[in-house]
Amino acid sequence: MLGTMQDWPLLVWKLIDHAATFHGDREVVSLTCEGVRHRSDWRTVRGRARQVAEALRHMGIVPGDRVATLAWNTYRHVESWYGISGMGGVAHTINPRLFDDQIVYIANHAEDRVLFFDLTFVKLVERLAPRFTTIEHYVLLTDRAHMPADTTLDIICYEDFIAGESADAPWTELDEKAPAGLCYTSGTTGNPKGVQYSHRSNVLHAMAASMTDTFGMGARTTVLPIAPMYHANAWSMPYTAAACGAKLVLNGPNFDAPTLQELIVSEDVDLALAVPTVWLSMLQHLEANGGNLGKLERTAIGGSAVPRSMIESFDRLHGVRVLQLWGMTEMSPLGTVGSPSPHVHAMTYDEQLDYRIKQGRGIFGVEMKIVGDDGAELVRDGKAFGRLLVRGPWIVESYFKGDGGQVLDADGWFDTGDVATLCPLGYMQIVDRSKDVIKSGGEWISSIDLENAAVGAPGVAEAAVIGIHHPKWDERPLLLVRQKDGATVTKDTVLAYLDGKIAKWWTPDEVLVVDELPHTATGKLLKTELRERYKDYRFPGA
Amino acid sequence: MLGTMQDWPLLVWKLIDHAATFHGDREVVSLTCEGVRHRSDWRTVRGRARQVAEALRHMGIVPGDRVATLAWNTYRHVESWYGISGMGGVAHTINPRLFDDQIVYIANHAEDRVLFFDLTFVKLVERLAPRFTTIEHYVLLTDRAHMPADTTLDIICYEDFIAGESADAPWTELDEKAPAGLCYTSGTTGNPKGVQYSHRSNVLHAMAASMTDTFGMGARTTVLPIAPMYHANAWSMPYTAAACGAKLVLNGPNFDAPTLQELIVSEDVDLALAVPTVWLSMLQHLEANGGNLGKLERTAIGGSAVPRSMIESFDRLHGVRVLQLWGMTEMSPLGTVGSPSPHVHAMTYDEQLDYRIKQGRGIFGVEMKIVGDDGAELVRDGKAFGRLLVRGPWIVESYFKGDGGQVLDADGWFDTGDVATLCPLGYMQIVDRSKDVIKSGGEWISSIDLENAAVGAPGVAEAAVIGIHHPKWDERPLLLVRQKDGATVTKDTVLAYLDGKIAKWWTPDEVLVVDELPHTATGKLLKTELRERYKDYRFPGA
Repeated sequence: MLGTMQDWPLLVWKLIDHAATFHGDREVVSLTCEGVRHRSDWRTVRGRARQVAEALRHMGIVPGDRVATLAWNTYRHVESWYGISGMGGVAHTINPRLFDDQIVYIANHAEDRVLFFDLTFVKLVERLAPRFTTIEHYVLLTDRAHMPADTTLDIICYEDFIAGESADAPWTELDEKAPAGLCYTSGTTGNPKGVQYSHRSNVLHAMAASMTDTFGMGARTTVLPIAPMYHANAWSMPYTAAACGAKLVLNGPNFDAPTLQELIVSEDVDLALAVPTVWLSMLQHLEANGGNLGKLERTAIGGSAVPRSMIESFDRLHGVRVLQLWGMTEMSPLGTVGSPSPHVHAMTYDEQLDYRIKQGRGIFGVEMKIVGDDGAELVRDGKAFGRLLVRGPWIVESYFKGDGGQVLDADGWFDTGDVATLCPLGYMQIVDRSKDVIKSGGEWISSIDLENAAVGAPGVAEAAVIGIHHPKWDERPLLLVRQKDGATVTKDTVLAYLDGKIAKWWTPDEVLVVDELPHTATGKLLKTELRERYKDYRFPGA
Repeated sequence: MLGTMQDWPLLVWKLIDHAATFHGDREVVSLTCEGVRHRSDWRTVRGRARQVAEALRHMGIVPGDRVATLAWNTYRHVESWYGISGMGGVAHTINPRLFDDQIVYIANHAEDRVLFFDLTFVKLVERLAPRFTTIEHYVLLTDRAHMPADTTLDIICYEDFIAGESADAPWTELDEKAPAGLCYTSGTTGNPKGVQYSHRSNVLHAMAASMTDTFGMGARTTVLPIAPMYHANAWSMPYTAAACGAKLVLNGPNFDAPTLQELIVSEDVDLALAVPTVWLSMLQHLEANGGNLGKLERTAIGGSAVPRSMIESFDRLHGVRVLQLWGMTEMSPLGTVGSPSPHVHAMTYDEQLDYRIKQGRGIFGVEMKIVGDDGAELVRDGKAFGRLLVRGPWIVESYFKGDGGQVLDADGWFDTGDVATLCPLGYMQIVDRSKDVIKSGGEWISSIDLENAAVGAPGVAEAAVIGIHHPKWDERPLLLVRQKDGATVTKDTVLAYLDGKIAKWWTPDEVLVVDELPHTATGKLLKTELRERYKDYRFPGA
């Protein structure tokens, strides 16, 4: 027997319909690839999204088809996104910063039929088009005046594409579990894998993101999601802002601190979301040039751990509160948010920082637990760390086309690939990546903690720790350090520095001074490469 | 083709599991029928709710069975509520303020198998037990020390009932559309009808209620839902507080202003929810006795329209912000909330009041439109008014057991029975009840607006307006007034007063001075009775 409440499927177009109906003249402001600041509102964006939906139908696109975008955050990208999902298509946001081979792989693997792209990417698309095997139509997100004069491609102009369609064209009624979006993980190993979001998962995620302790957004909020739409849906902002009726400000192709600062000040942005590197540039820019952040109240920061110094700088220099987030593409992306619990709120500032550098507390809809090597759940005492498993309605069940096979355990838990602690106040803190943690005599050593300690040693510019096979302990840590110009670092100076700062049994078995350390395109240490280099290394005497 | 996100059914026990996991020591404080203040927390309440679930299983209750409660807001009621739904039962909250016949009708109609009840209601239950046809077990929500010495009933003591069960007893996995709760409308005509909430509808409603512009609750909130659990789930507070990890304060059987004031101050309540009459008493109490409301920041007020003077008094005398709500049992109950839009926020105080006396803006998940007599949608200009229709995932599809037949129109809209305006800023304002509006020459006249105008006339204590058949205009307004002691009111004095204050064509065709006007048990004008009294009335000369 079922209840007797209405069957009202959770579909993403209902988010923008809500915005258009109850917050119709709330603004959507974009910096654009044409170099102007464009002003629109939710009612207009909704109408044009319906035009996109209808134009795609007329093009022959049917529900379930993938339609790709290679675009910055702009109103046209938001319109296309809602338009694609709103006619049953799957909005596939491609990260333009990937290598050519990865973009080609992703577009072909997804079998994208149409590609919406920005002026920025005309040359890129021209270069890759011969290698795309399924794309039938190229739609350039601009107007007739800005169409390229000479191009090897047969390009449709976006404004022409939608011009003849009705702003009242209907949305498509769908099963709420129908796919709405697709995003590939950048995967450090193997080919990228696709996460196919459903209408249901996106709507539930948007509702959770709207909660007071998540982003705390309402109709009076002005939000700038610097996080791009191709990074896990810009952390849901185009959905969440619509659900709340917030003013949405989009930075288009601009990520430089001066432009972002001017945008924050001139548009009265009170909440802005980005990765730490963006904020580091901003803090440096403000320090060098003066200026302020206008009405900015909060920065939501995720993507990698937020340094304590960044939280302090925002507080003390700019009166801006940092809200740390943690999530992943496979989680839509939100998992935890660092809104202070009442206990933390009552602490001294320095005590609070010990919690604010953690990744935050689980939001409703995300179940979390940590488990040891044997799969048994570990205590939530803030000290024990283990593999972090998650479960919930906006967490992946399997990758697109079944890539990677079964990714949930028998009880439905997804392994995040992170090692973490959970504390009695509900906070989670990432300790390491699972594949980087060093397993020594049945206990785990955090490579990140060791690196953070070692980088403080005199003369050390950068440090990396990997596990090396050990006949007795299974693995033991090898520390690799790059020294600062002109410094002289030795094993002894580093170990002397570490003495007393780390548990005795964490002490690296060897310290090697190297000329360089390998990095990913985004500047992270490339541990896979290090492990490959040192796969035959053995400790002296082991 | 469906998306590839996890199948994670929306079940109400996941709300309290979240609270126990991430906000385990956040308090649940109750005034009780035993006269003490009881302190618990979400972890403990969750454990005891699981004990209730297991005890019900051992009693032979199976998923789909109705289990009733006749109880005030206390921790034991919350435990029972989650425990019943958590094992698949349907928590049927009965309003103890109904007449005996109604309670008997409701319990028998619902086929309740168990009744959990408070000490307050021992005599009531003893009196009604012989008339209950399906109740097999009576569980008194108290401990052994407070069990009544002599009673005609075979009563199970709640604390004994759950004592032997495990606090880790499993919840029941269910379809998210399975019923979780049941609440009967008090229906002014005919028998009460049941609204059977599903797990899905309750969880979605709790998420919407958690949004910043709805109740704006987070883990640092301390909420006192004076609204009882038998009134549409205490406006979702036991669910929403769990979803947010808020501190939950419960007033038990106490509704008097001094007790509520003391509770608000001593427990640092910052948000309290109740109908206007409760707040009227509170304002009068504070005016007469001095005192303050401690850390109270906001009162959420629904159930009937909030007078402008109440909003002003809270603002000016107590620095407390009134948040007006509108909803109904059939809507779980939330439909609109009066959080100011950015436009309203920018207005002067007096201009703001014009919007704050409206019932608020639709929250995401509630679609609304107004239609004329012909069913055609009307403009949202803040002036045109028509029948208010709603649609959404926590709105009733049909009443329990199909009572009342098909209640949705062909497009799935539910008729609220209210007549309302919608304005360009997204605000809804109730103008009248559909059955009370006067249909004159194809146009509608609001009986409420006329009454509000007439009650200002010199000497008028109370006014009522009903429509009377008219050969030319279909209906025309008849105004009935009761005069203040010692006053002399005539048709001429009233009409002279109304002149210029209402549209000319709204002028009542007749004004009758009467000795009394009929009221419902809750003090509302009983228009059905008035229409019956005047069903043969004809206007002079018509």
